[in-house]
Amino acid sequence: MSHSPLIDELITAFKCLPGVGAKSAQRMTFNLLERNRGGALKLSQALHNAMEHINNCEQCRTFTEAQLCNLCNNPSRAESQQICIVESPQDVLAIEQTSQFKGTYFVLMGHLSPIDGIGPNEIGLDILAQRLQQDKIEEVILATNPTVEGEATAHYISQMCKKHSIRTTRIAHGVPVGGELEYIDGNTLTHAFSGRREF
Amino acid sequence: MSHSPLIDELITAFKCLPGVGAKSAQRMTFNLLERNRGGALKLSQALHNAMEHINNCEQCRTFTEAQLCNLCNNPSRAESQQICIVESPQDVLAIEQTSQFKGTYFVLMGHLSPIDGIGPNEIGLDILAQRLQQDKIEEVILATNPTVEGEATAHYISQMCKKHSIRTTRIAHGVPVGGELEYIDGNTLTHAFSGRREF
Repeated sequence: MSHSPLIDELITAFKCLPGVGAKSAQRMTFNLLERNRGGALKLSQALHNAMEHINNCEQCRTFTEAQLCNLCNNPSRAESQQICIVESPQDVLAIEQTSQFKGTYFVLMGHLSPIDGIGPNEIGLDILAQRLQQDKIEEVILATNPTVEGEATAHYISQMCKKHSIRTTRIAHGVPVGGELEYIDGNTLTHAFSGRREF
Repeated sequence: MSHSPLIDELITAFKCLPGVGAKSAQRMTFNLLERNRGGALKLSQALHNAMEHINNCEQCRTFTEAQLCNLCNNPSRAESQQICIVESPQDVLAIEQTSQFKGTYFVLMGHLSPIDGIGPNEIGLDILAQRLQQDKIEEVILATNPTVEGEATAHYISQMCKKHSIRTTRIAHGVPVGGELEYIDGNTLTHAFSGRREF
């Protein structure tokens, strides 16, 4: 209770951010009021613009304000005839930062989770099925998270690709570069051994 | 780089919040886009309203959208004839939560810091001087922070009060309740000893 309805409203509104509780929300509110009103107004505008204008790319489902995202709009990307399947737009960013992959993406915006009512259509697999049929695709790279749901989703998509006789690959799971063996969990080590290659 | 100008703009805008870096800003952006667009629009509106309408209370300088804040507007508050001097509006909240103090406040919005060009007028001591002269005040409680600048500010204000023969007190500094002696710094312990009272 700050004795000012507008300040209380702002503190409450800040709590919608992930990882922001009552104390952080209060700190943010007073910090902006005291030191950065210009930045706060910019943030207000940016929030409004983003929430009103950002939708999903018609082809890959990632977030974009246009009909097609920049990557889908880039003709050289489609040339590689590779689609990388990821769970979220952040995964696209992470992969793009490596500059290794030159194909297009398909963003599931989640993973199969029948218990939560999330079936194939909820993660856009109907759109993916269309792409597999219409586009010329050589390889589908499954880059879903190595969780139970992510693996199940990868398995489901690999079955879809089989019908169209498209090669499907799964990104490698193993010991992270720079990691120390003694701190790696057994599951990851098992993956690292079963996925070993000629040296 | 997210390949969407609006998303990039929002991520950059989030970085104006205290304690929010590139990674947190990205997490907040995608979290709101994916899960809570309504909350984000509310936050946008609350930010805009707060930044446009919140100013300083004419009497105590705390943040308020009205001419006088709720506390200054409350006639029973002035009856106690006590003014508590604090550095920031958050300090007012902290003291109000204890429900112990029933007087009015004066918020410096900082502390004296000549090296940064912050003199008496920058922290509103001209307004305080007027209040000391015009209002009927029995006691000024100095609750500035126990830092070098806070102590200097408290000292300066105590000199102002002396001119008007108003009683000035300083809140007690000592071992926090629930604290363990062995972890308390020497400075605090010295304060605790010099401020000891009959048991």
